[in-house]
Order: sequence, then structure tokens, then C-alpha cells
Amino acid sequence: MTAIEKTIRKMAEAARNAAPEVARCPADQKNAALKRIAEKILQDASYIQAENKKDLVRADEMGLSGPMIERLTLKDETLQSMADGLNDVALLEDPVGRLSHTWTRPNGLQVSRMRIPLGVIGIIYESRPNVTVDAAGLCLKAGNAVILRGGSEAFNSNQALAAIISRALQESGLPEHAVQVIPVRERSAVNALLKQEEFIDLIIPRGGEGLIRFVVENSKIPVLKHYKGVCHVYIDADADLNMAQEICFNAKVQRPGVCNAMETLLVHQSVAEKFLPDMAERFSAAGVELRGCPVTCRILPGTNRAEDADWPEEYLDLILAVKVVEDMDQAISHIANYGSNHTEAIVTRDDDRARRFVREVDSSVVLVNASTRFNDGGQLGLGAEIGISTSKLHAFGPMGVEELTTTKFVVFGDGQIRT
Amino acid sequence: MTAIEKTIRKMAEAARNAAPEVARCPADQKNAALKRIAEKILQDASYIQAENKKDLVRADEMGLSGPMIERLTLKDETLQSMADGLNDVALLEDPVGRLSHTWTRPNGLQVSRMRIPLGVIGIIYESRPNVTVDAAGLCLKAGNAVILRGGSEAFNSNQALAAIISRALQESGLPEHAVQVIPVRERSAVNALLKQEEFIDLIIPRGGEGLIRFVVENSKIPVLKHYKGVCHVYIDADADLNMAQEICFNAKVQRPGVCNAMETLLVHQSVAEKFLPDMAERFSAAGVELRGCPVTCRILPGTNRAEDADWPEEYLDLILAVKVVEDMDQAISHIANYGSNHTEAIVTRDDDRARRFVREVDSSVVLVNASTRFNDGGQLGLGAEIGISTSKLHAFGPMGVEELTTTKFVVFGDGQIRT
Repeated sequence: MTAIEKTIRKMAEAARNAAPEVARCPADQKNAALKRIAEKILQDASYIQAENKKDLVRADEMGLSGPMIERLTLKDETLQSMADGLNDVALLEDPVGRLSHTWTRPNGLQVSRMRIPLGVIGIIYESRPNVTVDAAGLCLKAGNAVILRGGSEAFNSNQALAAIISRALQESGLPEHAVQVIPVRERSAVNALLKQEEFIDLIIPRGGEGLIRFVVENSKIPVLKHYKGVCHVYIDADADLNMAQEICFNAKVQRPGVCNAMETLLVHQSVAEKFLPDMAERFSAAGVELRGCPVTCRILPGTNRAEDADWPEEYLDLILAVKVVEDMDQAISHIANYGSNHTEAIVTRDDDRARRFVREVDSSVVLVNASTRFNDGGQLGLGAEIGISTSKLHAFGPMGVEELTTTKFVVFGDGQIRT
Repeated sequence: MTAIEKTIRKMAEAARNAAPEVARCPADQKNAALKRIAEKILQDASYIQAENKKDLVRADEMGLSGPMIERLTLKDETLQSMADGLNDVALLEDPVGRLSHTWTRPNGLQVSRMRIPLGVIGIIYESRPNVTVDAAGLCLKAGNAVILRGGSEAFNSNQALAAIISRALQESGLPEHAVQVIPVRERSAVNALLKQEEFIDLIIPRGGEGLIRFVVENSKIPVLKHYKGVCHVYIDADADLNMAQEICFNAKVQRPGVCNAMETLLVHQSVAEKFLPDMAERFSAAGVELRGCPVTCRILPGTNRAEDADWPEEYLDLILAVKVVEDMDQAISHIANYGSNHTEAIVTRDDDRARRFVREVDSSVVLVNASTRFNDGGQLGLGAEIGISTSKLHAFGPMGVEELTTTKFVVFGDGQIRT
């Protein structure tokens, strides 16, 4: 075992030992700890920002891009929003210990399900140091111990945040190993973490597709993940075309670099001639490049032709693939072929078709007459989210506090035996 | 790619293509298909038994043990019970398409969760051919396509059942590839199956610890599993000792070879002198060998001493480890150290301690004043079960039809966009 492997194993073991105490911790005490972390982040802002400065100097030397340096920078507002986030999580209902309805078996056994923490969660993420605080807060709220591994660009920032969290936990009477940040820069720490299946119950990677594939390939621990969001909006034959235009514009333009932005627009042939020219004009004014199917290019002369590679593409940019379809069935089968099970929307006034679209489209969030941008834990009412799952096991869609828990069966009897 | 790899990939692809049609299939049609399979199993009993005979002859030549041959044999009663099981599954409520309560967001979006099938499930199991039918029935009911891989000892039996299922599906208008049994004896078919992560959503291994570890080590697909059941009963200070004796006897003796049988008995020191002698006498009359801690051996002279290796042991036999504990905390910490998160029970008249035991013991089923043998999907009211999960992700405890599904978010709006 290398020194790094020893360090990681020791951390995983410490987390496992801390987990039962975190699981038993009453809601009030967890909430007090969350608020204490928030306070200390604001109190110790200058210390955090001094450590952050070290990362920024290094990032500059390494020639990181402007947007990456932007995401790495812990401005006063960033720290404030981290603190606000923690206070919001403190307000959420505590899922731990909640009982489902109770059912009674013919022999008198009373059975229910009790919500319980998952245990130990490992989170692996890239540059933004706010994930350190957001993820720690959600995992704690759900009664879990957590091991965090941020990007090496944010190493000093994350260590500073770890020190603050650790002190706040001790002041609140929670085990100090309830939240640990890996104090090792090397990539091999990730490999070591992924092998601690004896101690860790779940790994959540957050970041680009490369990171996520690496984690899935190398983990012996269950992984909750999403690779990409190739989100579609389908404009149905009897859509309200003004509404359709607003939804499409919002889904593409409001924040093109995120996973729930629209990447492909599907338009029913009967409304394409009417809908596309105005829509295209508005997109063009916003700097959106269209890549169209042959029918789209006929309706919108001068539009670039979409190639095969465009349909499964997650642009994360002001680019949009556009296809005119014969009917809703063709739209649904296009989504089945090229989508990523992330987010799909239909714009229609026809209730039957809306319901059929919702039933038949196999995505984590399916919307009727609303923007794809609503696939988000906060927007859907889950409180904060730890990420979005596009695989179906355990959680499908945005994951809030409840998705960081599971249930066990509790059974009360008066001497029942099995015959 | 080898010929076997090609075969398996083709099957996985066919299952993936069949999955949407199975998912959309109305409850009535699925139930009719289940009943049709049941009918055909009884009608074609002689064909199935002739194929089963080939397996039995081979098993005999290979010198398989009596109990293994017993489990392999498809008697008339076995076929009847397979058919009964399918008819029972047909009676269960269909989980697919069920909506949770709807909540409304401040912007008017109406959000709910819809229960949907997982997609394609792979099941890998050992000798008993009835799993072929049971698993196919549950997966179909939950709207999934399934690929089955039974033990090579049951090869001909499973192929015969596959042919019958396939005909019944066609007669019922379901896609024929909704249920497929791997037509290859070689072990490499399992390796190939575990690599079809592009097409398969979930793998469930059923069998001994060796099989399950092999699957977990080699699968790129999420796995739901349980390794073993080291189940404890704790007799509290103010337990009803008659009730305690009945529960312990049932938990150990009624069916010692199964995962929810008691393997370790924990007794509070204040009742040990009173409880253990009568209990030991009853166990002794039933042929149960006790292995005791030092205090147990003092109370029950002549009892074998338990060694360190006894505490984490799953005997699956008429052997029981016995330990006298100082208090409930020691019982809970013994369970945390040596248990397998499967099934634990307390016998007590103290409500507070019962509730604390239920909260603090980290097992998939925790019982108060009832036998551990109730950790079973049928017994707890889930209908049939596909297995018991002792890992916490997705399902923890017995898995019924609902655990073979997941949920997606469905959102109805009237033009909402994100600002």
C-alpha cells in the first residue's frame, strides 16, 4: 500500500466510524452545525480568500482559461451565497427517521419503512470550491458522513474550507470526521478512494464526461452520475406558437452552458412553416447558430445543414440542431435514439398527446408547456440538489436530501413466528 | 469479439429494443401474459419434465449432491407452484404509470413523480430452475425486459421454460424478446453479459457468495445484491421469556439453511441465567449445536466455546453462536461489528428500548417481538420478491415489483420559463 492509499483508507475508515453518530444526530443539532459552518465562512472570509489567492496565482501561472479562473474565485458574494445555501438546507425538513404509512399483515405484524441515511458518501468534483460546502451541507443534513475530493486547481481553497467545517462540527458536537476533504493533490488519491468499498456506500462524481467515465470505469462502489444532457423541445401540431417561442428561447439562450439547456428542437411539419421563420430570427438576433434537417433548411434558406454527429451532440453553447418531424411518434423515436434520458419538453394544447408524451419519453424530467431549464432540484421543490442522475437506479433526475437517504423496514409484532 | 460475446450482445440489444414496448404495455395485457405462461407450464408439463430429466441424468453422472439434485428436480408440485406464483403476480397492483401526489411550485408548475420500469434487467442465478419463471414474471409485471442466465446444471430445463415463455408472450402480443434465456452453457457468457452496460440497466445475482462476488467484481452495470445474512436476535432485560424462546426457536430451527435464519443469539446478562438453560434444552432436543461466550459456557456447562471466527459466521445450519451482553448498547455494537445489515430482532416489553433498537440497528429489516424469518417480500406484504438487498442503494431489504421500477418527474406548466 502506498502512503496515499494508506491516507485514503484511514480517512474512509474514520468516516465509517463517524457515520452511526451522524445518523443518530437529532435534526436540531445538524441544523445548528450547518448554521455554524455558514457563520464561520463569513467570519473567516479573509483567511479563505487568502488561501483562494494561492490557487488563483497558481491557476494564472498554469494559464487556466478566464471562465475557469472565474469559477475558482471566491469573491465576497460567492462566500455569502455558500452561507445562504447552508442556511437554506438547515430549513429543509429532516428526512431521517421518517416513517411511511404502516400496514398490518394478516398475522398482526405492523410493517412500515423508516428513512435512514446511506452511510458514507464520496464526492469527486472539479474546479468550483463552492461544491465543497454545498455537498457537505446536503450530506450532513441527510445524516451521512462524507469524503470530498475537489479539483487540484482549488486545493488550497478546499483545504481552508475543510478546516472551517471541521472546527464548526466540533463546536456543534458532531464527529470531526463527518466531513473530510482529501489533503492530497495527486490523482492517485481518486483511484484509492474508489476502492474503499468496505467503508463507502456511494460515489457521486460531478464534472465533465471524462471525469465521470473515469469514475465509473474504476469504482468498486456504486456510482450515481449523469454523463450529459442532450435535451429536446418538441413543438406539437397544435402548440401555442407564442408560448413555444418563449419556451424555446429560454431553453436555449438563458444559460446555454448547462446540462438542462435545449440542444435539439423538434417541430411538427404542420406548424414548421409558420413557427420556424420568427423563431429563427429571434435566435439569430441572440447569436444562436442553427443546424437544420433538409426540411428546416428549405424553410430557412441559408441555414447550415445538420450532420449525423449533430443529433447526439451536447453543444453547451449557442448552437441548436433543428429537425422537422412528421408527427409526435417520430419526435419520440428521435428522442429515444439520440437523447440522453435527461430532460425533454413538449409544447401542445392537446391533453391526450401531452399525457402520451409524458408517459412514453424515457427521461428523468418530462415537461409539458415549460422550459427544460426547470430540471433542477431547487426549481422542482426538492430544496438544494447534489446533482442530476440520468441512470435509473436509486435516483432518476435531480437528487435532493431525500435521495441521499434510503429506507429500511421496521416491523412490530407481539410474538409472531413463521409457520 | 468471440461468438459467445456476439450472441450476448445481440440478445442485450434485442432486450433494449423490446423494453419500450414492454414499458407501454397495459396492465391487463401483462397480466394475461403471466396467466398464459402459467397455463402453458401446466399444459406442457411432460415436455418440461423430459428436458429436466436430461439435466438430472447429467447431474447424477457428475455426482451432484442429493440436496442439489432435489432443488433441480421439476416435480408436478414444483410446476404447479411456479404457475401459482405467476397467477399471484398477475393479481398484484401494477406500479407502472402510478403518479405520486402533485405539488405546485410558486410559478404554477405542477410537479409529480411517475413510476416507470427500470428498462432491461439481467438476472444471474444458480441451480433452481423455478427462478427462471419467478424472475421473468416479476420483471414483466414491472414493465421490464429481462435476460436470464441460470446454472449450467439446469440448462435444458431453463431452455424448455424459455421456449414456453416465449410462445406465451407471442400469443399475448408482447414482444418475444421481453424475456430471453441465454442459450449458452459456458461461463464466459456471464462475463459478456456483465459488459453490456450500453443495453442493460441492472444486474441481480442470486446464489452463493462466490457467484455474487464474481458478479460485483466483473460488472460494469449496477448490481443489487446481498452477500450473506448473519442475523441476530437480542433478548432484552425485560423480555417476555416465553415469547423469546418461541421466537428464537423459530428463527433458528424452522429453516436453518436460509439467509433470514438466526445465526447469533444475544442475551441481556440480567435474564441469561433464567433464559438460557430452558432455551438450550429445547435447542439441544432439536439438534442445535451452541457455541457460547465465556459467560454462556459458565451458565451452560459443557457448551462449546465460540471462537472469534464464530461471530461473523453464516452457518446456514443447526449451529448457533450465543453471547451474553451487559446491556442493549453492547448488543447493538456487537451487531454493528459482526452483522451483515440483513435482519435483526429484539424481544422486549420496553417500548423506548424497542424504538431505540429499531432506530439504531442498521439492517434492512429490524423487528420487535417477531422472528427474523419474516424478512421476506411475501411475508412483509410486497407480494413476490426477486431477492433481498443488503446494500443501501436503490433498495434495502426484500425487493418486490416496485423495487424493479424507478420514478421520473413529470411537470405540467402553462408556458413557464426560467428567469
